Amino acid sequence: MGTRPIGVFDSGVGGLTVLRALRAALPNEDFIYLGDTARLPYGTKSAATVTRYSLQCAAALVLRDIRCLVIACNTASASALPALRLSHPSLPVIGVIEPGAQAAVAMSPGGHIAVIATEGTIAGGAYQEAILRHKPDARVTARACSLFVAMAEEGWNDGPIAEAVAHRYLDPIFAESGAPDTLVLGCTHFPALMAAIGSVVPSAVRIVDSAATTAAAVVQALRKEAPAGTAAASAPSGRVTWLATDGAARFARVGTRFFGETVPVDAVQIIDL
Amino acid sequence: MGTRPIGVFDSGVGGLTVLRALRAALPNEDFIYLGDTARLPYGTKSAATVTRYSLQCAAALVLRDIRCLVIACNTASASALPALRLSHPSLPVIGVIEPGAQAAVAMSPGGHIAVIATEGTIAGGAYQEAILRHKPDARVTARACSLFVAMAEEGWNDGPIAEAVAHRYLDPIFAESGAPDTLVLGCTHFPALMAAIGSVVPSAVRIVDSAATTAAAVVQALRKEAPAGTAAASAPSGRVTWLATDGAARFARVGTRFFGETVPVDAVQIIDL
Repeated sequence: MGTRPIGVFDSGVGGLTVLRALRAALPNEDFIYLGDTARLPYGTKSAATVTRYSLQCAAALVLRDIRCLVIACNTASASALPALRLSHPSLPVIGVIEPGAQAAVAMSPGGHIAVIATEGTIAGGAYQEAILRHKPDARVTARACSLFVAMAEEGWNDGPIAEAVAHRYLDPIFAESGAPDTLVLGCTHFPALMAAIGSVVPSAVRIVDSAATTAAAVVQALRKEAPAGTAAASAPSGRVTWLATDGAARFARVGTRFFGETVPVDAVQIIDL
Repeated sequence: MGTRPIGVFDSGVGGLTVLRALRAALPNEDFIYLGDTARLPYGTKSAATVTRYSLQCAAALVLRDIRCLVIACNTASASALPALRLSHPSLPVIGVIEPGAQAAVAMSPGGHIAVIATEGTIAGGAYQEAILRHKPDARVTARACSLFVAMAEEGWNDGPIAEAVAHRYLDPIFAESGAPDTLVLGCTHFPALMAAIGSVVPSAVRIVDSAATTAAAVVQALRKEAPAGTAAASAPSGRVTWLATDGAARFARVGTRFFGETVPVDAVQIIDL
């Protein structure tokens, strides 16, 4: 059954950085990506609402016979992961927070980790908790970098404005001695700004891209399911099926920036959840 | 009945620039402000959904016995104004788009008007249509300035980053000869950035702040209702009642920046629509 697709959902287009990393790690797998664009953003909504929306997204993907569910959204990972696992006990369900936190703890030489994310994710404290669960004596510095989201959506990924904004958010964290040695990009939008972020933090700082770490966690989960070799026999085709709940044109246009390849507007199916 | 309050609603805190202008114009009136923070932003939602939400906001305010309804939200003004007027035929209902468009036409010496707003407002074309309705031979240049919203919410209202962003959005509009002579701030967030915007457009350009023009339209509507003198006799107290549908702390904190006075967090009532 190696040809069943991997389902990925997010509130919008940010999760396409996760899909991009998944495609790089698993080039022959089929994917279904669902962006709940009609109800974005999730970050400002209550945990109960985000859980309800996430269960609806998951149900739409499970109907399409997925073999694994990836929550490519920090807010949904923080709020809905337990409910999603309970509702789909036979399906591997992977969120973005746990792999990022785990990678940060593994990579940090001194245990001082900075997390940057949206206001909602930082206020919710999910990364901070996940890091401390893995390393109770870690020191965590957290900062909301709200403008990064708008910049990534606008495609202003590098250049003087992106760097000035990165300086304004990150200098207060990294300018002093005893600064963090590791930085977690705790929002799916932020890997798009990697160049600007990388140019303003000290070169010794390890940057954890939660998109890449999530992809690695998915590879591991699939290996556990089907031992190496069995999947290759069924020759997956490496296709992506595009679903959104509103605005195909914007989804394709802005999504292309995050995905790094063209999201063809004609291929985007609008579904009702 | 001059003591009945004026009801103002918006999807969030941006409409507080309109409330600020209303308070400046009508310092003795009572206001009820409702921010539908649980369901923001309206800008990415369909017209049918925005109309439904707007009718719910209006109903909550009408229950509180308002004497006038102000739609302090561009998206809701564009989509829901006719439905709101139909549902509340005896109530003066004033949106933000019509007064801004009218003021721009009146102020523009050459009839070349630039409109900046959110992506949704620009794509919907409501300002463009309203301007052309008042002056069919006007030339309208429209541009979405999405980052301005995030900057205003973050409180980055002036300084080098705000000016660099304003240059990037506005220079392409104003750098050439035959540029617009008038600029409409078609988003309730944008008046917060007036200093940065004003510093990058040529000094001859007239800037239309739709918050101020909406306040002027409300003053006019109230005068039509109650001739001058009758309202003063009932000695309104100039109070603001604060309602929001989610997140009192964020509403108060970010709202304070737009309102220009403290929005006391303890005074914010969370209501369910």
